[in-house]
Amino acid sequence: MSEKTEAAPTKPPMRDALIAAAFQLFTERGYEQTTVDDIVTLAGVGRRSFFRYFPSKEDVVFPDHEGCLADVTAFLAAGDDADEPVQRVCDAVRLVLRMYTENPAFSVQRYRLTKQVPGLRAYELSVVWRYERAFAEYLRGRLAGRRDGALQADVAAAAVAAAHNNALRSWLRSDGEGDVGTEMDHALGYVRSAFGAPPSDAERTEDVVVLVSRRGAPLWRVVQEIEATLGED
Amino acid sequence: MSEKTEAAPTKPPMRDALIAAAFQLFTERGYEQTTVDDIVTLAGVGRRSFFRYFPSKEDVVFPDHEGCLADVTAFLAAGDDADEPVQRVCDAVRLVLRMYTENPAFSVQRYRLTKQVPGLRAYELSVVWRYERAFAEYLRGRLAGRRDGALQADVAAAAVAAAHNNALRSWLRSDGEGDVGTEMDHALGYVRSAFGAPPSDAERTEDVVVLVSRRGAPLWRVVQEIEATLGED
Repeated sequence: MSEKTEAAPTKPPMRDALIAAAFQLFTERGYEQTTVDDIVTLAGVGRRSFFRYFPSKEDVVFPDHEGCLADVTAFLAAGDDADEPVQRVCDAVRLVLRMYTENPAFSVQRYRLTKQVPGLRAYELSVVWRYERAFAEYLRGRLAGRRDGALQADVAAAAVAAAHNNALRSWLRSDGEGDVGTEMDHALGYVRSAFGAPPSDAERTEDVVVLVSRRGAPLWRVVQEIEATLGED
Repeated sequence: MSEKTEAAPTKPPMRDALIAAAFQLFTERGYEQTTVDDIVTLAGVGRRSFFRYFPSKEDVVFPDHEGCLADVTAFLAAGDDADEPVQRVCDAVRLVLRMYTENPAFSVQRYRLTKQVPGLRAYELSVVWRYERAFAEYLRGRLAGRRDGALQADVAAAAVAAAHNNALRSWLRSDGEGDVGTEMDHALGYVRSAFGAPPSDAERTEDVVVLVSRRGAPLWRVVQEIEATLGED
């Protein structure tokens, strides 16, 4: 996705000017009290220009999600059978994180706005749902041969989205301070461990695990002990 | 929640008449083409009666979710420390399933309607999100002492909701045919296994010991640690 910063032609200055004008007004007078007319007047363009870029006032609040969703879908489609499926989805969700971290001040501003306006909260839920469906569709394809493949795909997709949101919201609540990349790795690592996907090479270095188990111990107890032991590091 | 069928006083006939009239019109002429005036005319009541029961036209499509959300929250709050947390949430989500299975024909009709109307889809996502938040809040409380408790709570809550939706939607797609209760048990069983929650008391008998050692540790040290660990029992 290093092409993203080179993709300037798809983000013309007028679009950026409209976003800037919209957020200035949302901050000054509130989201509900700002009309599309107010936004285009401040940006110095006509109404038709606004609607060329944004179907509605809500869409200007989330200007990069459509592009990011397309990036995520393309990234998943570009994978091959050698990719561990849940790992691939974890890598895809990092593209969403990057959209937020590319402009922390804007992301924090939007987070505060979304918390205040129920309509934007609903819009955001529908966006999150679309990412989750993209993850689930990819995983359903990859796990198609497995018993319960669709179930496992849906659950893993929801788990990745939830872990991402946990780390992202924690960072947004703290005004974009702190190392969200490390927090995200940790959160996604938890999901991978829960679904039995092997850890990344970086984590597969020194440690050896010796397991001593009583005959007849259920698998969940074995997994629980391994997790508890590894967690002590 | 066996009290639910006895709670008739909270579901007066006028409310049921409004729901029936609304769904008759939604089916005959479509959701968007039906106004609240159309609904109250068919039901033979005034507009104020409609708004006494439903804040908006969307709410009449999901008449039982507020009550069910209250039931779920109360059920979780009534648990105690002996409950395995994820198991408790799995039991809570069965209350949601029961709301759907109490009236399969209505649930299937609503499912088809929701798929056709984007506004209703958004409404449903916000309802699902509220259940998921109720699960997460409960789990955050129960896992508060754990490292990563909030992360684990959010991920497990999302996983339970996803498993529930997988089984529920499969049943709704097949027009309410088949044994959704068994499918739901299976789906929730998968979530419990993924998150290491104990399936039942019967399996909580034998113990497991885990040792983590650095690669290159001499064998005598490994054996010593195994002996020391087993000796702790």
